[in-house]
Amino acid sequence: MIPSQNLLAAFDRVDALWSPKVVGRVNDQLLKVAKVKGELVWHAHADEDELFFIVKGRLRIEFEDHVAELSEGDFLTIPKGVRHNPVADEECWILLIEPASTRHTGEEVTPLTRSLEEQLR
Amino acid sequence: MIPSQNLLAAFDRVDALWSPKVVGRVNDQLLKVAKVKGELVWHAHADEDELFFIVKGRLRIEFEDHVAELSEGDFLTIPKGVRHNPVADEECWILLIEPASTRHTGEEVTPLTRSLEEQLR
Repeated sequence: MIPSQNLLAAFDRVDALWSPKVVGRVNDQLLKVAKVKGELVWHAHADEDELFFIVKGRLRIEFEDHVAELSEGDFLTIPKGVRHNPVADEECWILLIEPASTRHTGEEVTPLTRSLEEQLR
Repeated sequence: MIPSQNLLAAFDRVDALWSPKVVGRVNDQLLKVAKVKGELVWHAHADEDELFFIVKGRLRIEFEDHVAELSEGDFLTIPKGVRHNPVADEECWILLIEPASTRHTGEEVTPLTRSLEEQLR
């Protein structure tokens, strides 16, 4: 039996802001859901692209040379190596797609940084 | 400038049923949108998992030992090698995530089979 899930229902597993939870996998990529509000931290993932899909609300992703304003249903792939800072004025629900090797806040470590083990709980 | 897209708007590129269009990429995986109605064909992808996400409508995925009934917002990853047959009683809009190496209908070739080149147009 191959289990299916509902994307909105998957957010029930989220217990804190900026704390992604792994809800699925396809090949070498993980699907993670997160509720975010406020600012994470400027960082980059040297070797991994990261896809953001907005499930609910609005997200601003700051880049060094421009800002992306995303609304429900929008998606964007941040190429590996590109520094970025996600900011949400109000609570926003996002789906992330990235490989297991991706570190949450890249080379940065802040009180918000979550390990893959925490994301798998 | 890193472009964003809207998932619903991406379906404007679809010009025929069962004819996926590549709308994004993250690492080695392609994001494709498709409008489907009726039945595709029983097939498997020997080396690639395939994720189905239901954007609009309902999709039934037949497996050899069970059937998955999917509604809007549901998603499911078909592990590599698992034979399946997607069926939609009414038009259904889906998002697929799979690597570029995935052949549309696996080892089967039918009039509905689309090459990657056709999916990239």
